[in-house]
Amino acid sequence: MRQSILFGKTTRQNPKDEVSVNAQLLVRGGFVAKVMAGVYAFLPLGLRVLERINTIIREEMNAIGGQELLLSALQSKDLWVKTGRWETLRDVMYQFKDSSDRELGLGITHEEPLAEVAKNSIRSYKDLPLYLYQIQLKFRNEPRAKSGLIRLREFFMKDLYSFDRNQAGLDAYYEKSKTAYANIFRRCGLDAKIVEASGGAFTKDFTHEFQVLTEAGEDTTVYCESCAFAQNTEIATAKAGETCPNCSGTLKEGTSVEVGHIYKLGTKYSKDLDLIFTDEDGSMKPVVMGSYGIGPGRVMATVVEVHHDEKGIVWPKEVAPYDVHLVGIKNQESRIMEAAEKLYRELQDVGIAVLYDDRDESAGVKFADADLIGLPWRVVISEKTLARGSVELKARSTQTTELVAIEQIGKRFK
Amino acid sequence: MRQSILFGKTTRQNPKDEVSVNAQLLVRGGFVAKVMAGVYAFLPLGLRVLERINTIIREEMNAIGGQELLLSALQSKDLWVKTGRWETLRDVMYQFKDSSDRELGLGITHEEPLAEVAKNSIRSYKDLPLYLYQIQLKFRNEPRAKSGLIRLREFFMKDLYSFDRNQAGLDAYYEKSKTAYANIFRRCGLDAKIVEASGGAFTKDFTHEFQVLTEAGEDTTVYCESCAFAQNTEIATAKAGETCPNCSGTLKEGTSVEVGHIYKLGTKYSKDLDLIFTDEDGSMKPVVMGSYGIGPGRVMATVVEVHHDEKGIVWPKEVAPYDVHLVGIKNQESRIMEAAEKLYRELQDVGIAVLYDDRDESAGVKFADADLIGLPWRVVISEKTLARGSVELKARSTQTTELVAIEQIGKRFK
Repeated sequence: MRQSILFGKTTRQNPKDEVSVNAQLLVRGGFVAKVMAGVYAFLPLGLRVLERINTIIREEMNAIGGQELLLSALQSKDLWVKTGRWETLRDVMYQFKDSSDRELGLGITHEEPLAEVAKNSIRSYKDLPLYLYQIQLKFRNEPRAKSGLIRLREFFMKDLYSFDRNQAGLDAYYEKSKTAYANIFRRCGLDAKIVEASGGAFTKDFTHEFQVLTEAGEDTTVYCESCAFAQNTEIATAKAGETCPNCSGTLKEGTSVEVGHIYKLGTKYSKDLDLIFTDEDGSMKPVVMGSYGIGPGRVMATVVEVHHDEKGIVWPKEVAPYDVHLVGIKNQESRIMEAAEKLYRELQDVGIAVLYDDRDESAGVKFADADLIGLPWRVVISEKTLARGSVELKARSTQTTELVAIEQIGKRFK
Repeated sequence: MRQSILFGKTTRQNPKDEVSVNAQLLVRGGFVAKVMAGVYAFLPLGLRVLERINTIIREEMNAIGGQELLLSALQSKDLWVKTGRWETLRDVMYQFKDSSDRELGLGITHEEPLAEVAKNSIRSYKDLPLYLYQIQLKFRNEPRAKSGLIRLREFFMKDLYSFDRNQAGLDAYYEKSKTAYANIFRRCGLDAKIVEASGGAFTKDFTHEFQVLTEAGEDTTVYCESCAFAQNTEIATAKAGETCPNCSGTLKEGTSVEVGHIYKLGTKYSKDLDLIFTDEDGSMKPVVMGSYGIGPGRVMATVVEVHHDEKGIVWPKEVAPYDVHLVGIKNQESRIMEAAEKLYRELQDVGIAVLYDDRDESAGVKFADADLIGLPWRVVISEKTLARGSVELKARSTQTTELVAIEQIGKRFK
């Protein structure tokens, strides 16, 4: 992509109405634009990051047997009344009437419609287990949207639902999902703790959140530095400074962002919605369900909270919108930009995603934008480098630069 | 994908509440499930078709300079009041209040928010032209949803918006978009006529619809069989049976489905929303806009209306959910399914997308499902074919079968 035509301009000043680091940097870098409080548009750069995160999620969900489908945002009241959640979720679910005076809602989660659609396909134990997921637009009536892209009124959610014959099946898949989630966050460059938490409007049982410790966090986690013990303070019995109940370590407390949440739902929804199967012995049983959520936009915002410096974002490789920022420093000689154009084509030919700064701007402006946008590698081609048949290579995460022969540079990214 | 675990069961009977051929076949084939009138969920097979259509659309939009972004469904009243459409679209736009008593809407089109977001990036003539598109979820308060997936209350829309310096720029891009649209529909297996139409709530000028003649059509088109003349009957001055005003041909009339619609918006939205740029001579001018829509779900439904027979769907190659339906006919000998498993792996290894019917069903059931699902090629492996080291190959669109040596079959799909 040529930066001269890329939609979304960078800005030096922080937007006045943004207090969170993630929104400040994502708006300044031209990744997103604010539509209203809690609602953002994804500009081309931001959409590329979102799609890369979605790709990672899809790969890991497919690897544990997930099949992708896509349900609707519009929900009929009738279905949600059956589980009691038309009332219990009323405060956070947009609910309104259509032109026929029928009550509709916008989905904030999809246990009800997923169980409903699964009814047509689950009849016998032979149809189980079944794992279905979607990456789908959800809505939340959020009175005080804050924290930039961490807490939104409209957001994508990857929600997987598991359907098992019995508790043992659910338990096994639940553990598998923990590993898949750990893979996802690691690949996105996040160190997520598995934290015991309450089930909220979903289940009475304890659940597990995936929390990333950051200053921008909205949740507070009590955790042990020596072992995996971690609890959301909502349910924590132990306090910071005390000895860990699992080991001899000392507990600490930190604010954290919830990037994922998994729930053992059991038979609550299958009983309310008549999702019943015939088991091997002929008996009729309710399906045992679990649900597993990740917000890709929130992951993106959390990555920015964790990976940035005073100059801008420092994207981890697997989620960066492009691999390389190719910066041509113009002077009177046309051969510099000719060499840059040639390199731009060659890098793309070997499968490297390149953002090419072909603009008529000073080196200072171009370097500042490269730091702000934060691609993993910056490649500068100028009169000085060209005199030595080279380009200047710099990783965004380090300060050191290095001269690399032009014909060798493609190989460095493989 | 193994059919034994594929989510979405086929059914022999037409669903009672569906009158349109597209919904009947898509529900029976396990492509979609009805959520409520005018709202459908895409099951794994249906989602694959939708994604293939989206891929075609993206390729053709990128080829004419389109940059992809993603705006929000939630809309603030303030913005739409400026163009007067908060009122004029009230009947079809879902509008409701949030928990702070603020009025919100769900986008049915995106001229307003696109012009708004473009303001930050368009300052001078150097920033033009600019072509932005999204494939995004839209909502329409539709009192009588009918025609299956052709007229929905929640649907994806590819909407591209063009921003030009002057009318000549818009006119040139408008013609380019016609060619891109023709490519899209051709690749999806549709023969779409370019039909002159009214601008509805978008513009007072004439616009162009892309209409596919089918019995399921909701619109009526007057067209000439000898030349490209075609008008929507809403605006048509000529009638069926009369002589074409462009040539000596005779006009005909037919019902058609609108699969795309393009509009020369001019400066209506840029004036209302202050989308102004500085031209080369220093003067301030409103940006000249166009908008260009396609409904991918409606394209999918129209493909089914056009490409089906009494046994089921006949997917065109470029939009089929899988290339090949591999059918293993079991008997007592395990070597048949072993050979089928081997072929399943080998075909995938050479990049062919395979739906593999590994179920414990009769040949009759498997053949009926293959016809219903409608993949371009059916490959049968049975005791009889295996005795000759072969498989039986049949195109969905023909009745003839042919024996092909197992080791040759992969090459036939290249």
